[in-house]
Amino acid sequence: MTLPALLANTPEPPYYAVIFTSQRTAGDQGYGAMANLMVDLSSTMPGYLGAESVRDANGLGITVSYWKDEASIRHWKQNQEHLQAQAKGRSTWYECFSVRVAKVERAYTM
Amino acid sequence: MTLPALLANTPEPPYYAVIFTSQRTAGDQGYGAMANLMVDLSSTMPGYLGAESVRDANGLGITVSYWKDEASIRHWKQNQEHLQAQAKGRSTWYECFSVRVAKVERAYTM
Repeated sequence: MTLPALLANTPEPPYYAVIFTSQRTAGDQGYGAMANLMVDLSSTMPGYLGAESVRDANGLGITVSYWKDEASIRHWKQNQEHLQAQAKGRSTWYECFSVRVAKVERAYTM
Repeated sequence: MTLPALLANTPEPPYYAVIFTSQRTAGDQGYGAMANLMVDLSSTMPGYLGAESVRDANGLGITVSYWKDEASIRHWKQNQEHLQAQAKGRSTWYECFSVRVAKVERAYTM
């Protein structure tokens, strides 16, 4: 697993963000290894621009991944290994989650 | 401080998201009290739709707040108490941060 930088080094807008907010169930149940695999795999996908991810001790997490366009997001969503991870996420790893796809219009950094 | 729900109960898109990713400096230095105040105050602002917020033990945090439109975001950004908090954030509380304003186009929840 390659650890992403704390702040994603994204280009000038416009680009897309996928905001994934999730509450983990108790216990690992294979989650950690798959999460690392998905971080690595997503970063090789066409149109990937970076990601930021935080999970607290209570299992609440927010991951925001950044993409060149909607086609890149759709392509990653349909990746075979990612589809398997999504299915396991629904059945086992997450109490609840939300996914929001948003077009980043402006951004600044300190 | 009113604790927000884990997942923000936002309406059907379109609406706006402000993605705030930040790395805290060491020590509280008044941060906790001000953060609670800003959570409470922002939730009273016109156009506020909800927020999701996570910070891990290393001080990396992501807060996503949701707003009806860009005018609501601008109004909150110019709030006098929020301006004071922003200044203290730059000078004292954050090693680094990024702000991204994005238009949510689609969303789903499990």
